[in-house]
Amino acid sequence: MTIDNGWYTEECREHGSAFSLKLKDKVYQEQSPYQLIEIYETESFGTLMTLDGLVMLTDRDNFIYHEMLTHPALFTHPQPRRVLIIGGGDCGTLREVLKHRQVQLAVLVEIDERVTRVAERFFPELCEGNSDPRARFHFQDGIRWAADAVDGTYDVIIVDSTDPVGPAAGLYAEGFYRHCYRALDSNGILVAQSESPLYHPQLIKSMHVTMATAGFQDIASLHFPQCTYPSGWWSATLACKDAPVSAFRETDAAAAALSTRYYSHLTHRGAMALPPFLQRAIAGTGA
Amino acid sequence: MTIDNGWYTEECREHGSAFSLKLKDKVYQEQSPYQLIEIYETESFGTLMTLDGLVMLTDRDNFIYHEMLTHPALFTHPQPRRVLIIGGGDCGTLREVLKHRQVQLAVLVEIDERVTRVAERFFPELCEGNSDPRARFHFQDGIRWAADAVDGTYDVIIVDSTDPVGPAAGLYAEGFYRHCYRALDSNGILVAQSESPLYHPQLIKSMHVTMATAGFQDIASLHFPQCTYPSGWWSATLACKDAPVSAFRETDAAAAALSTRYYSHLTHRGAMALPPFLQRAIAGTGA
Repeated sequence: MTIDNGWYTEECREHGSAFSLKLKDKVYQEQSPYQLIEIYETESFGTLMTLDGLVMLTDRDNFIYHEMLTHPALFTHPQPRRVLIIGGGDCGTLREVLKHRQVQLAVLVEIDERVTRVAERFFPELCEGNSDPRARFHFQDGIRWAADAVDGTYDVIIVDSTDPVGPAAGLYAEGFYRHCYRALDSNGILVAQSESPLYHPQLIKSMHVTMATAGFQDIASLHFPQCTYPSGWWSATLACKDAPVSAFRETDAAAAALSTRYYSHLTHRGAMALPPFLQRAIAGTGA
Repeated sequence: MTIDNGWYTEECREHGSAFSLKLKDKVYQEQSPYQLIEIYETESFGTLMTLDGLVMLTDRDNFIYHEMLTHPALFTHPQPRRVLIIGGGDCGTLREVLKHRQVQLAVLVEIDERVTRVAERFFPELCEGNSDPRARFHFQDGIRWAADAVDGTYDVIIVDSTDPVGPAAGLYAEGFYRHCYRALDSNGILVAQSESPLYHPQLIKSMHVTMATAGFQDIASLHFPQCTYPSGWWSATLACKDAPVSAFRETDAAAAALSTRYYSHLTHRGAMALPPFLQRAIAGTGA
């Protein structure tokens, strides 16, 4: 990451690309026990939060990621009452989860409490559900939380993590998925952010293989734009214990008319249509 | 556009963002009568062509744009035999058009012959259809070409243009759309690239209004990722003289099994699912 002439730049070395946002001001910085948290005001994307120099979210485009990580999974489960969010310290995913009236309990397990405290201050609209009586916060290691969970505790587990390097690497491992499988009730659904279809098709493929090895019956990825993440294109991967991922509650999703800006039952269905090159990469038949 | 420390950077001033590609080398430069054409070898995106400092295409991601500009329109028309491409000097759209066996004539009208000559040298795979006997090239002004066209000459008109500024501005005007309407046969379809859903929803809305004013019966936009264009998210807008855009030849598209990497009958249907914020912007009911 570099700040140069009033621009914030995140470089994706592996793919020889970079994305930049013009800044108005740096408004906050804190070294938490886990990472460097920085807050900027940008010229056209509102507030920007970075963690260790990587874009976590901006005001302008976080709605796509948060909605597409949450609603497809919750409309795939027949009755999502108990939801576990691992990571997601900015609380945007929690806010989307709480839009579902069937949800009785939404547990957010974030390793770095400071991310949540900083989000409460600089992204208050994402945190508007934080005082909802259905929300619980535990600032602990999510991998340990999943390992310690009683069998069948949750209906949906959402992995809203950073990239699969450093402390988050364990969130992409078979052992973690096995704990999630066990912690999910029958019909349980796991969903995890799964990086860029253009840059990381092999990661997406390996997540499919690892989730299947961990016991999940059906696995499918969804894709959606995400301007401020590398390549501007992102994905989420869903894994079901029982039901096929394609059989989501489409009528319920249409009728619910949630206050969303990207998600609808139609964009949900559309996001499941993977381009042939990605289908081939996941199937292991070339790109 | 700036070249700095071996990076090419395209800045989108209006939206305070920039996208950069790491370069290996600059391999060609030419000032044509219309624009500055530059060719670079990038580290991870293959060859890059820029026009007046703006990304026109890269080896790595042009397939998405070219496939999504072409195949939805051609699979919406009941029998696309005569296709006019306005712009599209890199020949990538022409290549996709020629994949349709019903096409008997594909006329490419590009104002700047030098773009095509440079593409033939540096993007030979995009130009592999150029010697197809169904292909015709006219290096002329596309607006004038449409104005002079005999009524009902074409089944599909594809506007593969640069941004709506400078010489391309006329390609977004009502007068041009009226000429296209007239030059199209019954069931005729016009498709135009229509910029970023995130950055330019008002342009997309105005294209809908202008196309309707010009006489088109049904208008719909499709969206798809496009990593190297501003915001990484792009759109095409289709306008039909008669049939509704949603009624495309889905079975034919599935059976055709064209050699595509992004397009399929499923991604076609998926791309038509617009996010609610964009639907509202087009309908004029807010974002």
